[in-house]
Amino acid sequence: MPAKWEKITTMPQLRVALAQVNACVGNLAGNADLVVAWTRAAVNAGAHVVAFPELALTGYPIEDLALRASFAEASRNAVDELAERLADAGCGDVLVAVGYLDRDDAGVRNAAALIHQGRVVARYAKHHLPNYGVFDEFRYFVPGQRLPIVRWHGVDIGLVICEDIWQDGGPIAGLGGAGVDLVLCVNASPYERNKDDARAELVARRAAEAGAPIAYVNMVGGQDELVFDGDSLIMSADGTLLARAPQFVEHLLVLDMDLSTAQHTVTASTEGFEVIRTAIDTEALPAYDRLPAPLMPAQLSEHAEVWSALVTGLRDYVRKNGFQSVVLGLSGGIDSAVVAALAVDALGADAVYGVSMPSEYSSDHSRSDAVATAERTGLHFSVHPIADMVRTFVGQLGLSGLAEENVQARCRGVTLMALSNQHGHLVLATGNKTELAVGYSTIYGDAVGGFAPIKDVPKTMVWELARWRNEEAMRNGEVPPIPENSITKPPSAELRPDQLDTDSLPDYALLDKVLDRYVEGDQGYADLLADGFDPELARRVLLMVDRAEYKRRQFPPGTKITLKAFGRDRRLPITNAWRENAIVPISETIALVHS
Amino acid sequence: MPAKWEKITTMPQLRVALAQVNACVGNLAGNADLVVAWTRAAVNAGAHVVAFPELALTGYPIEDLALRASFAEASRNAVDELAERLADAGCGDVLVAVGYLDRDDAGVRNAAALIHQGRVVARYAKHHLPNYGVFDEFRYFVPGQRLPIVRWHGVDIGLVICEDIWQDGGPIAGLGGAGVDLVLCVNASPYERNKDDARAELVARRAAEAGAPIAYVNMVGGQDELVFDGDSLIMSADGTLLARAPQFVEHLLVLDMDLSTAQHTVTASTEGFEVIRTAIDTEALPAYDRLPAPLMPAQLSEHAEVWSALVTGLRDYVRKNGFQSVVLGLSGGIDSAVVAALAVDALGADAVYGVSMPSEYSSDHSRSDAVATAERTGLHFSVHPIADMVRTFVGQLGLSGLAEENVQARCRGVTLMALSNQHGHLVLATGNKTELAVGYSTIYGDAVGGFAPIKDVPKTMVWELARWRNEEAMRNGEVPPIPENSITKPPSAELRPDQLDTDSLPDYALLDKVLDRYVEGDQGYADLLADGFDPELARRVLLMVDRAEYKRRQFPPGTKITLKAFGRDRRLPITNAWRENAIVPISETIALVHS
Repeated sequence: MPAKWEKITTMPQLRVALAQVNACVGNLAGNADLVVAWTRAAVNAGAHVVAFPELALTGYPIEDLALRASFAEASRNAVDELAERLADAGCGDVLVAVGYLDRDDAGVRNAAALIHQGRVVARYAKHHLPNYGVFDEFRYFVPGQRLPIVRWHGVDIGLVICEDIWQDGGPIAGLGGAGVDLVLCVNASPYERNKDDARAELVARRAAEAGAPIAYVNMVGGQDELVFDGDSLIMSADGTLLARAPQFVEHLLVLDMDLSTAQHTVTASTEGFEVIRTAIDTEALPAYDRLPAPLMPAQLSEHAEVWSALVTGLRDYVRKNGFQSVVLGLSGGIDSAVVAALAVDALGADAVYGVSMPSEYSSDHSRSDAVATAERTGLHFSVHPIADMVRTFVGQLGLSGLAEENVQARCRGVTLMALSNQHGHLVLATGNKTELAVGYSTIYGDAVGGFAPIKDVPKTMVWELARWRNEEAMRNGEVPPIPENSITKPPSAELRPDQLDTDSLPDYALLDKVLDRYVEGDQGYADLLADGFDPELARRVLLMVDRAEYKRRQFPPGTKITLKAFGRDRRLPITNAWRENAIVPISETIALVHS
Repeated sequence: MPAKWEKITTMPQLRVALAQVNACVGNLAGNADLVVAWTRAAVNAGAHVVAFPELALTGYPIEDLALRASFAEASRNAVDELAERLADAGCGDVLVAVGYLDRDDAGVRNAAALIHQGRVVARYAKHHLPNYGVFDEFRYFVPGQRLPIVRWHGVDIGLVICEDIWQDGGPIAGLGGAGVDLVLCVNASPYERNKDDARAELVARRAAEAGAPIAYVNMVGGQDELVFDGDSLIMSADGTLLARAPQFVEHLLVLDMDLSTAQHTVTASTEGFEVIRTAIDTEALPAYDRLPAPLMPAQLSEHAEVWSALVTGLRDYVRKNGFQSVVLGLSGGIDSAVVAALAVDALGADAVYGVSMPSEYSSDHSRSDAVATAERTGLHFSVHPIADMVRTFVGQLGLSGLAEENVQARCRGVTLMALSNQHGHLVLATGNKTELAVGYSTIYGDAVGGFAPIKDVPKTMVWELARWRNEEAMRNGEVPPIPENSITKPPSAELRPDQLDTDSLPDYALLDKVLDRYVEGDQGYADLLADGFDPELARRVLLMVDRAEYKRRQFPPGTKITLKAFGRDRRLPITNAWRENAIVPISETIALVHS
């Protein structure tokens, strides 16, 4: 026997596998295939238990599909069929936990099934339903009260789902009261900055409450505006991190675990819970050869993590929606250069089409920087000047000022959409979160697109990511994808001669500080003044944000990376007279310009 | 004394006023002004009690403004200031019920205050929080458990809010158990077809449960996609409709009511509720001269009701957002003719700008029917042919097929937006619900606009409304606004020679029947077949609906009139592989065309 394997004989043990898979919403058949394939891999690895994420069979979030009786019925049938298929595929001996949509007389449930020997041996319905941020689970689900505990190879296994561990007094306390040896926690927990640290701390706290280790498995992959980062982990009852999966990739995390009831020291009660015990196999396994613990993955840096989230969100939106390629406008500026680099990382250069659309106000450097982006990344490049189109509109309609500026952006939008219709590319919008916040974009102009990869990235972070990505390339001996001049030059929309963003906007560093407080922090005007911001600056920024709500409503979806992204995370009325700074005149308070 | 007045002397009585007002979201100062002005009118009418709608001080729905501490604090302060202002304005003697956003240690509340003599004498927090359809109240509010009962002129008055009466076992049962003489029910209940009938029946049922009459006051006016229709009413405990306000107009409904505890026959319990009794005045009023009951308003016909809802929604979106005028494309077709008529009814012809934008494929009748719409309604009319613009794009980009068709629609979109930017008009999108359902529109083309008045009107109903509106004009001796030819000719997008909608779509009568079941009814494919629909037709329509989700996300807001409007009423993922008819090939299943 190789020296690295050690023999254990004394206590209940299980080889636990966590299957961190990329499910697709609505694809019951495809997701079931995923479960079968990864369970096979787990069986091949000798696992006794394998857990899949929350709603792995349906994908997450399914939104109003949950309300459609035909879908709920199909999901319930799919889990029964899956049980049979697993047995037929030689996976009957392993205990499989998988999330699915259930339906009973009381309504629909966010449920997980424990499957063994071709049948569902236990079902658990999520107790705590998140209804904040991007979540609307009260809209859909009836909460569960039951606590199934399954004895398998002498080990008592409890099951909980995602939000159940984020709320105090949840089912973990009940499992602690009942006494379990292992808790499986199945999740679809979307990525946001710094959340991985919060998760590990939380799981450690709940493991102590349960008096048992927790095996936490999370979804991976993109779904519309959400990205799931995986980051599955196994934590001992005393808060030791035993194993962890890498972020943003599908992965099977396998760990041999000692699981002894001797650890039970908790005093929590089962009051309020209906404990249901099912014994499959009460005998502990005989001693077997133990695998070495998997290596801990390297922690991603802050910028690497955000970049990976953006690449994953973009790639999965494109692929899951059946597109083969993307097209975007290359202005020579930082935003389009970063989106181009993301697209090339996500899809490969051959699937990315960059278009330079110079106008009479375009500078020489904007043309040459666009060319440089194409050369550095290897994407397909073409030039379509918009001067003739703009001249036709301006002349025929007698346009000037803002109307003339916007026509340029809109001729670019029409050009990109025409190329999309002619060649089948998905159009990427290149707007960032700062622009979207203050409405510094042209609706139906630079805002056109099926997906907006950096929609939730503040401008200052766009620069940071560009620098990080270039440095990463240099570390790997590759060509930095983003032209240095795109990073260092002052940003301009180039819709009139010598225009600079700072003509209309505060300095971006300052602007992002205000936006971070107002948008993500939901702070008021008085809070900003208390934090030392200039009253006139705060007044102006808040007014711009409030007045741009209508533009955000028609903006394409894009990957959420912050605590509060525009979209379902921040739901504000368009018609809204509330102004934090009440001394604004009423006319200015509510007048919109639809531009 | 005039013969029509009768003297009453025997039992507790009150003159009750319901102020059906049009509040604006976020306009705390303006809404407080409304409350003061209408309370003055109620006092002038001799009322002893006046009730305002749910969240009348903040407007409804306030969405994530509820989460902002500065706004909740401002609302709470506003109700205290309002109490003082009412006393200063000589309205201290009347008991005023008004909805506002409250905040305490447990969180924010959807609350109503009872105000008397310059101070808040009772506060009630909504017990039941709707979290379905367009409502997200679990996201915001902590539910109340208290049941304040105020004795005023010897009458015990209870208070509930909107959803409280839509759920069985709600606070009405508690009030019945405690014994009250009158229930004030304050509401912000959005219009949808046939809801007024449901409301009256519901109020009658709850009045029987309470063993007391219910005075039900509802908001009026438009707020983004919602329209509140008023329809305030007063129902006796035995289910007699005592008074009712007209729909869609601000109105003060005043009724003298006999309010005797002798009616109490209910046996409900107060268990689970915290009853809080406050006595302001325990003595019944001396006999006073009684007003005649107000005339019952004429019931609006189905079409008149929908038309009024659409006019109200459009008018309030335009006015509350500070626009003076609107612009829309006039194609000569039925949709733009109906939107033009709605806009003229909502804003007056002088505020409406119609633009004909013929292409080389435009028929003679499309040009002449557009002219006829302008002549019949008196709106401002101009012609801007798009041939030159289209030729430039098609030639320079080498477009054909769908790409060429869409460029025409997009040149119209750019034209309308340029006119909007140059002249300050709000652009109206003219798409109907059927088009939006199946994606029969060009994103950034005919879909551009700040508001889409008939977004929730199925195509077959667009025709019905056109006929009804013309007949209404004839009944009133006015010129029918909609050209007969726009109603009777076969619909066409005219983006290629001899194109008809029926080239791409099933007959609209049949299509709308399928959509009614799939979209509003959430029925599945099997249900449609069971209802006798052709499998291939059902398959095709469902696939079109599923694949158009991305277009709906970027469509402008528009007035909800049906049970389930696109938007917050129907929340589906874009990335969604679920197909009701699972035998569709996978590639067809998920491929989008961004067109």
